[in-house]
Amino acid sequence: KIHRIASIPGDGIGVEITQAAEKVLHVLAKTLGGFEFDFTTFDWSSANFLKRGWYMPPDGIEQLKNHDAIYFGAVGSPDVPDHISLWGLILPIRKSLNQYVNVRPTRILPGTTSPLTTCKPADLDWVIVRENSEGEYSGQGGTSHGDTTYAVATEVSIFSYTGIHRIMKYAFETARSRPRKKLTMVTKSNAQRHGMVLWDKIFYEVAKEYEDVEIDKMLVDAMTVRMVLNPESMDTIVATNLHADILSDLAAALSGSIGIAPSSNLDPTRENPSMFEPIHGSAPDIAGKGIANPVGAFWSAAEMVRWVGQEVAADKLMQAIENVTKAGIKTKDLGGQKNTEEVTTAVCQEIERL
Amino acid sequence: KIHRIASIPGDGIGVEITQAAEKVLHVLAKTLGGFEFDFTTFDWSSANFLKRGWYMPPDGIEQLKNHDAIYFGAVGSPDVPDHISLWGLILPIRKSLNQYVNVRPTRILPGTTSPLTTCKPADLDWVIVRENSEGEYSGQGGTSHGDTTYAVATEVSIFSYTGIHRIMKYAFETARSRPRKKLTMVTKSNAQRHGMVLWDKIFYEVAKEYEDVEIDKMLVDAMTVRMVLNPESMDTIVATNLHADILSDLAAALSGSIGIAPSSNLDPTRENPSMFEPIHGSAPDIAGKGIANPVGAFWSAAEMVRWVGQEVAADKLMQAIENVTKAGIKTKDLGGQKNTEEVTTAVCQEIERL
Ligand SMILES: CC(C)[C@H](C(=O)O)[C@@H](O)C(=O)O
Ligand SMILES: CC(C)[C@H](C(=O)O)[C@@H](O)C(=O)O
Repeated sequence: KIHRIASIPGDGIGVEITQAAEKVLHVLAKTLGGFEFDFTTFDWSSANFLKRGWYMPPDGIEQLKNHDAIYFGAVGSPDVPDHISLWGLILPIRKSLNQYVNVRPTRILPGTTSPLTTCKPADLDWVIVRENSEGEYSGQGGTSHGDTTYAVATEVSIFSYTGIHRIMKYAFETARSRPRKKLTMVTKSNAQRHGMVLWDKIFYEVAKEYEDVEIDKMLVDAMTVRMVLNPESMDTIVATNLHADILSDLAAALSGSIGIAPSSNLDPTRENPSMFEPIHGSAPDIAGKGIANPVGAFWSAAEMVRWVGQEVAADKLMQAIENVTKAGIKTKDLGGQKNTEEVTTAVCQEIERL
Repeated sequence: KIHRIASIPGDGIGVEITQAAEKVLHVLAKTLGGFEFDFTTFDWSSANFLKRGWYMPPDGIEQLKNHDAIYFGAVGSPDVPDHISLWGLILPIRKSLNQYVNVRPTRILPGTTSPLTTCKPADLDWVIVRENSEGEYSGQGGTSHGDTTYAVATEVSIFSYTGIHRIMKYAFETARSRPRKKLTMVTKSNAQRHGMVLWDKIFYEVAKEYEDVEIDKMLVDAMTVRMVLNPESMDTIVATNLHADILSDLAAALSGSIGIAPSSNLDPTRENPSMFEPIHGSAPDIAGKGIANPVGAFWSAAEMVRWVGQEVAADKLMQAIENVTKAGIKTKDLGGQKNTEEVTTAVCQEIERL
């Protein structure tokens, strides 16, 4: 069986870690046998944007549709304003391919430690379910009187019944599938009195179908406090596009490093390919040095492997990653001394050994 | 000299900690001499809202104007939807009295510790300058098709030149007044491409007037990572209403407890009274038990004392608070064993002793 993967390395360390992930995936397929990955690389980067004037060609989305999944490195460059690069590449892909769920698991991997004094590895085991299609990332709004001293700009967040209902369904299903069956809903409905109130309402409506799932509600500001002081009190978390963006970076930091955290941009209807990307950015400061942590890229790759139906292979890859971190073969951000290539080689060897 | 203070204890532990703060302020004035505090208490609470149908009477804002400062406990009750209580009380006060700056200092007080393994007390010393009048708290937007499955709601964030420019000026002045002269600006202009782009632009515009201030720019998600992993790298921080709300709760947690953190809602023009409140909420779960941490309330009171011009008294109060935490006289959230009254008595005695 051949899995056709669209690969978009993008900018900065995105290129290095995508290479590393492809290598690991080839070794995985070769070792297990019975399936293969066929990567098509798309050179949609900021460097090319500066040359050509576009990130994706007009039929870019159509080209992607022609694949079983998309692997994404990172986008962002000091030479292009961030809102241009992101609205030129990652955000239209998420939206056009109906990837309305962004799943962000966080755990403390073996051999790594939390920066929190009292947090034992088992205390922090969360899945953040992020609304990925609307909310604060709707892109609506505008600017009037732009260059004057009476300029006024708006950001319009859209919350639709469909958008909220489907993310709540996904979050409840996720919570139900996990041993603790616990879902914490995050909101800011005290200050944001329209969309966030609808968000809360639909949460409680959907909750009625999931009486086996234990629920609670947190305000986003207080949620950061709880993540720091009571990590063990949470399991599955559902939040808006912006809130979950912030909380998932915090979660990654509390689990040791932003370099390990994966994300899956899913279209659960499977009408469109889903996209897998580490949550870290393009990190221009360390790009090209070969020192980026590839663990987030590998973990994202494992989620992709699972999504395309290769469960056994996904488990093996996760096991290999964890054996390697456990053995202390880690990059500098995790307190180790290894570079990208050394960690990659170690994971490949571990796959072959397992 | 008599300082006329409007006191709004509000809900839950707001009542207990306001009482404690008033007691400490009376002792402070009596000990130092030459000035007095005259408190007028406003019973604008959720309990009374349920009886009367309003938090503030129609001339509430006018009544407050008649004072030198406002002391606020907390608002929020399980019996009233949060958006009703907050838009009935705290948010209209901030907005109507032009309190466009919210200042939130965070430090690790003597005798307390950060939950972060590598954070030494001197590493975490931040002032968060929060935009307090517009942005994500503008209240604009609405809901259509409310009770249907095609409901759609919007939250409209407003960013105006005036609103952004004045908060940047305040933030740069704050940064300049501190030894490190460093200002970190927080944004999400990669995903929010209208208001946040204007925010960035005006930041760089104002920066030209402050060449002695070292600046940098962070995305709000990455900012949480930096706060956890590199607390020593920051000093003064400026962020929008929502971003700073989230970051200031995180900051409080990283400094040990949300129970110690103060906030000042300032009208820097001094045309209207400013308002001082601990950043914690009404905490219904522990309300009435006499165990709430009064330190955030005392620190907020110290900021108020400074604002009304009693610098010497403000310094003395801060010194007393710090001596008491240093001596280990702390509530449970800080790892201590004392209750509200014991901490309050200790602070009063320390004021008299100093
Ligand atoms: C690059 C950026 C648009 C993106 C986001 O905010 O969604 C990133 O921070 C992420 O979390 O995937
Ligand atoms: C009570 C609520 C409206 C408030 C806010 O979000 O501003 C609180 O969280 C704060 O930080 O002062």
